[in-house]
Amino acid sequence: MASSLHVAVDVVGGDHYPTNPIAGAKLALESHSNLVLHLLGPEDLVSREVDAHGLDRSRVVVHHAPDIVGMDEAPSAALKSKPNSSIALGNGLVKQGHAQAFVSAGNTGALLAASMFILGKLDGVSRPTIGTVYPTLKGFRLLLDAGANLELRAEHYMQFAKMGRIYAEHLMGVDSPKVGLLNVGEEAEKGTETILETYNHLKELPEFVGNIEGRDILTGKADVFLCNGFIGNLLLKFGESIPEVLTQLLSNSMKEKALDPAQQALVVDVFKETMQPFNYENVGGMPFLGVNGISMVGHGGSSPKAIYNMISNAMHCVEVELNQRILSSLN
Amino acid sequence: MASSLHVAVDVVGGDHYPTNPIAGAKLALESHSNLVLHLLGPEDLVSREVDAHGLDRSRVVVHHAPDIVGMDEAPSAALKSKPNSSIALGNGLVKQGHAQAFVSAGNTGALLAASMFILGKLDGVSRPTIGTVYPTLKGFRLLLDAGANLELRAEHYMQFAKMGRIYAEHLMGVDSPKVGLLNVGEEAEKGTETILETYNHLKELPEFVGNIEGRDILTGKADVFLCNGFIGNLLLKFGESIPEVLTQLLSNSMKEKALDPAQQALVVDVFKETMQPFNYENVGGMPFLGVNGISMVGHGGSSPKAIYNMISNAMHCVEVELNQRILSSLN
Repeated sequence: MASSLHVAVDVVGGDHYPTNPIAGAKLALESHSNLVLHLLGPEDLVSREVDAHGLDRSRVVVHHAPDIVGMDEAPSAALKSKPNSSIALGNGLVKQGHAQAFVSAGNTGALLAASMFILGKLDGVSRPTIGTVYPTLKGFRLLLDAGANLELRAEHYMQFAKMGRIYAEHLMGVDSPKVGLLNVGEEAEKGTETILETYNHLKELPEFVGNIEGRDILTGKADVFLCNGFIGNLLLKFGESIPEVLTQLLSNSMKEKALDPAQQALVVDVFKETMQPFNYENVGGMPFLGVNGISMVGHGGSSPKAIYNMISNAMHCVEVELNQRILSSLN
Repeated sequence: MASSLHVAVDVVGGDHYPTNPIAGAKLALESHSNLVLHLLGPEDLVSREVDAHGLDRSRVVVHHAPDIVGMDEAPSAALKSKPNSSIALGNGLVKQGHAQAFVSAGNTGALLAASMFILGKLDGVSRPTIGTVYPTLKGFRLLLDAGANLELRAEHYMQFAKMGRIYAEHLMGVDSPKVGLLNVGEEAEKGTETILETYNHLKELPEFVGNIEGRDILTGKADVFLCNGFIGNLLLKFGESIPEVLTQLLSNSMKEKALDPAQQALVVDVFKETMQPFNYENVGGMPFLGVNGISMVGHGGSSPKAIYNMISNAMHCVEVELNQRILSSLN
């Protein structure tokens, strides 16, 4: 039997706590026999939920974290005023070696700040980053940075390229990932001064395939799309809005064409299948890359299945020794 | 009868010249009885096409423009080495008052450079800009800047807000247009230093509705979306790629579900209707805003219908006195 793997889970993070984190934790325990969970939140609340959902007490440790950080709280103020939050204590468990990873669907900014402050940066990393998986015709691919660093210099893009390639290869199963730089044209001389300088740095990397235009994202022309966090955040939220908007447009056209119920059912069925590549639930969460420990954030609206997938992904990051690989690539 | 309106048309611009510009010109002549067209390109070629398509010679003036600027030529080099291009001479006709507007589906960069160099800027304008219409649940809305200015300062955003509001109201038929700033969050304190400063400037404008996130574009939360040209270009091309990518995904799921031909026809029919809001053909082209004259650019792939709509839109810009309105708002 494989040795135990310890993952800390924020029970009071996200829009649907404590139910979804607990339900996701239960799925993870059922699916991974070597998993031990450290559940963080106000002890009464967590214990009650553990019993209500019937989690296996022998594989669960409850850690009292009385402070709850809200989804919209300013990160630094929240961390200062709430030293006993699930976010602070969860990263602390990783730092102290009690857990090998921490996962949360909570406040992304606070999670990033806490992971950087508590775990620190990996040797050689200028700035940690957070990516997002992005739907493409070839399946999910990686978009870096997704909002952690609004402005970047050339050397940051270089590090993100290396970390992104490793993540795409070892956690997303992409063979020889291709890294592209989001830009306004394919030609080397396109873009702002920063982007031109970045291009000249990146072209030294064997994984770099050049500039990628807006039209090349959904087609999956690269496996890792590099951009600053301002752009990444806009694209991330834009992408998330596509299924809902199209559902609305589809509903309008079905009305206009006065489809009968059987026809509507057929169209909706095909459409749902069509939008499956946009279903982020299958991914769950992403680790902050460049942090000295596995600390992972998921979508605020995470379902139990998304939490389950985030825990599984965290285990996977530990198993493939993500951070050791990043260290080797950077140093 | 209304007095004649003279529009110059680039016959050798775009991916499908001369056929599409000429076919679009013909549609425009048939639809607007007060329209006179000035057709630019190599004289032999243009004359032959005019006759082949049976355009009304009494309402057409052919201007010999032997130089052809390619779609991918560097703008400044092209303008220097090709003084007798349709792009240079077309803007010249506007400058000299022989035409009230010039339209082209050609090289956007060269068109912008030529319009700025030949027509100059409107009094009080720091930088001319080009927008793009963007599909939303409420219909097409305006995204500014779409690629002309990769980096912007706060004062540029201010002018773009004013010019964009006027365009949305008078050319797109939006009542009391709302202007939003694309940003990584709704709160006033979000974004880069430039964006924070821009927000503080913009909030003085009655039309400003605050920060707009990536998820709020397709839902049409604002009528004018402000961003720098780097972001605008990425979003423009991303948006254009959506129909094609979804068509591919739809085709995959129809195969997977093994629909019979009748079912496929139904689904495709509804889907086509669903994607209609993304059909740029209905818009045709946009004027460079802030230039002293109406000079308009359309998509390189413009169909005859798109060219026709671009000509109609150019006439509309003249009729509503777009530039006089911009001048009043800025000075």
